[in-house]
Amino acid sequence: MKNIIVGQSGGPTAVINSSVAGVYLAAKEIGSDHIYGMVHGIEGFLKGEFIDLKEELDDEKVELLKRTPSAYLGSCRYKLPKFEEAKDVYEKIFVKLDELDIEYFFYIGGNDSMDTIKMLSDYAKENGKKQKFVGIPKTIDNDLPITDHCPGYGSAAKYIATSIKEIIRDNASFGVEKPTVCIVEIMGRHAGWLTAAAALAKGDDCEGVDAIYLPEDTFDLEEFKNRIKKLAEEKNSVVIAISEGIATSDGKFVCELGDSNKSVDAFGHKQLSGAAVTLADIIHNETGLKTRAIEFSTLQRAATHLASLTDIEEAIKVGYEAVMAANRGVTGEMVVMLREENKEYKINYSLYDIHDIANIEKKIPSNMIDSENKQLTEDYIKYAKPLIMGELTPIYTNGLPTHLIRK
Amino acid sequence: MKNIIVGQSGGPTAVINSSVAGVYLAAKEIGSDHIYGMVHGIEGFLKGEFIDLKEELDDEKVELLKRTPSAYLGSCRYKLPKFEEAKDVYEKIFVKLDELDIEYFFYIGGNDSMDTIKMLSDYAKENGKKQKFVGIPKTIDNDLPITDHCPGYGSAAKYIATSIKEIIRDNASFGVEKPTVCIVEIMGRHAGWLTAAAALAKGDDCEGVDAIYLPEDTFDLEEFKNRIKKLAEEKNSVVIAISEGIATSDGKFVCELGDSNKSVDAFGHKQLSGAAVTLADIIHNETGLKTRAIEFSTLQRAATHLASLTDIEEAIKVGYEAVMAANRGVTGEMVVMLREENKEYKINYSLYDIHDIANIEKKIPSNMIDSENKQLTEDYIKYAKPLIMGELTPIYTNGLPTHLIRK
Repeated sequence: MKNIIVGQSGGPTAVINSSVAGVYLAAKEIGSDHIYGMVHGIEGFLKGEFIDLKEELDDEKVELLKRTPSAYLGSCRYKLPKFEEAKDVYEKIFVKLDELDIEYFFYIGGNDSMDTIKMLSDYAKENGKKQKFVGIPKTIDNDLPITDHCPGYGSAAKYIATSIKEIIRDNASFGVEKPTVCIVEIMGRHAGWLTAAAALAKGDDCEGVDAIYLPEDTFDLEEFKNRIKKLAEEKNSVVIAISEGIATSDGKFVCELGDSNKSVDAFGHKQLSGAAVTLADIIHNETGLKTRAIEFSTLQRAATHLASLTDIEEAIKVGYEAVMAANRGVTGEMVVMLREENKEYKINYSLYDIHDIANIEKKIPSNMIDSENKQLTEDYIKYAKPLIMGELTPIYTNGLPTHLIRK
Repeated sequence: MKNIIVGQSGGPTAVINSSVAGVYLAAKEIGSDHIYGMVHGIEGFLKGEFIDLKEELDDEKVELLKRTPSAYLGSCRYKLPKFEEAKDVYEKIFVKLDELDIEYFFYIGGNDSMDTIKMLSDYAKENGKKQKFVGIPKTIDNDLPITDHCPGYGSAAKYIATSIKEIIRDNASFGVEKPTVCIVEIMGRHAGWLTAAAALAKGDDCEGVDAIYLPEDTFDLEEFKNRIKKLAEEKNSVVIAISEGIATSDGKFVCELGDSNKSVDAFGHKQLSGAAVTLADIIHNETGLKTRAIEFSTLQRAATHLASLTDIEEAIKVGYEAVMAANRGVTGEMVVMLREENKEYKINYSLYDIHDIANIEKKIPSNMIDSENKQLTEDYIKYAKPLIMGELTPIYTNGLPTHLIRK
């Protein structure tokens, strides 16, 4: 027996499938008869959509799974309603779990997904249900509390830093012309972890970005314009990283600043350009400087071809540890990664009460931010550098990385 | 003696530095005393900016050079004026070439750069100058005539196809929600070669893009809207590739279509969003469908971390062959790559009169385009597949690909 079920939830990452691999490997090890996977998370499971990973995977396919972006099982953005509001949903879930003789339930996700684990484990305890519920952390945003970092962040950071290095080289190629100002927009509405990764580009072979604007700091348009003008006087290539979530002191997102964004189209709809496009337009119109806006968009969470091996291994391990914990009787907890202090980079895996994790958002601490110079401090570099180390070479077919898809 | 000089011109590619490597290796082989590199092309050279690659490079650095994006020597967008208009510019160039005892002059670039080779070689012949001028093809746009393809195209195509595969997986992750329409904008104002590369994503592990809109075909907004609506009824994830250069029958670029783009900002400037953003807005506003616009921007020409090994090797070879040709007395020609018919993929290197190449733009031939289904035909796949084969693994430092930069 020891049947288990695993689901993926929320925005995918480059390594969310590695956590499925970790769950699968551990479930095989503890002797699970069935290793179910929810298709499109709990939303799909409620509709009866699931597969048995024992029938789908083998050793070779696990190697492809680790190299496949997005959610192999399919994801969802379903927020479990409160028990008081939807008793029937809870009952339906547990009827299905009982039907399949499922003992352990794993959910790979971020804040909302941990809320699901919290509510289901609370319900199970209160109603004398046998099922154990353990959360597996995942988010490129790196904003879950307690855990040192989240699987998914390291690979996104590696993609961002690599692409920023390539953009800096590209932008510098036309040195004798008038300066080009390149503004790169990076994901992260409230926490600037992803944007911070632009700081990792700097090194012996790269001059680094000229400024990094994080949502943790209030955005001041005048300061921004003055900084760009000064930079453009001093150098031929200016590259700036901004978070999509930067906002002014009155709480306005930057993409709402440009006058042209206040227009409505023929249908009365308001068009919102991104923050980088808005700022590039403002700078170009005020200074005449050549500007370019780049948005990494979903590429930053899907570029598994450039995933960090450290991240892949940690994503496997959190999945593995979740199964081992449930098998020891743990429920209502999330696997967390704790970094050993004052040593070479080393992560110890532990568990933490889900009530202290769900719905709490971790921002970048102030000791990592150099607000005056719009850079990250050495504390951030020390924190983030180990997370992007190592590579897992893709398996190429016809010149392209091979993926594993559900049939 | 046999001093040579090489310059890089126009938009960089992932492998333009490999052609510098090819020139360097060949020049060493023929015994050049000096292997000069123009800093920022002929524009920088006119200001006296050059380096000696014999002092800058060694075997180890050549390996890094092959893995470095953008123009190592620096590029320019300087268009050489006609002789009648600027006799002094020509005289200045040849005074400098004579001062440095330069015998062979190589320029790596696209159409405009081949125009420079044409005018300088014509001038040299007419004025009894000893210097030989040979063009080295380079452009991600793949729009130079005569040559089977251009170095730079294969790597851009590999990046585009890989990223499209990752985007397709990502977009499909939320299957049970209402469909998401993702519109990906790819470079290419007049020729659709880069956008066509989206077709390479399709395979056993990828369903491929749902439609490809090329500038070779007239864009019909009604047809586009109807196609998307139909696709959104049939499937949960829709991914469309469009060229930045698609235009309607009255010659309007798509980015000029949206009403919101006709607005002006506080300074009276018109803001132009990209084609993908414009179409994503139109579709969202008319249908309520969730849409997403992605632009690869300069990443598609700078992603050397994912360069095609075939492309790198060919870029080296065209540089190498240019030097060997000049050493045989050739001038006023460009190196071209000719594909052997009816055999395994094999390229023969040859030379072609620069007068038949400069300023001519090669579009996708009609046998490669399936206009009705908005796809590429098997003829295109056969043509393009060999160009993306193979990889050259980056040399990683601190988790990031290492580049070579001028000190």
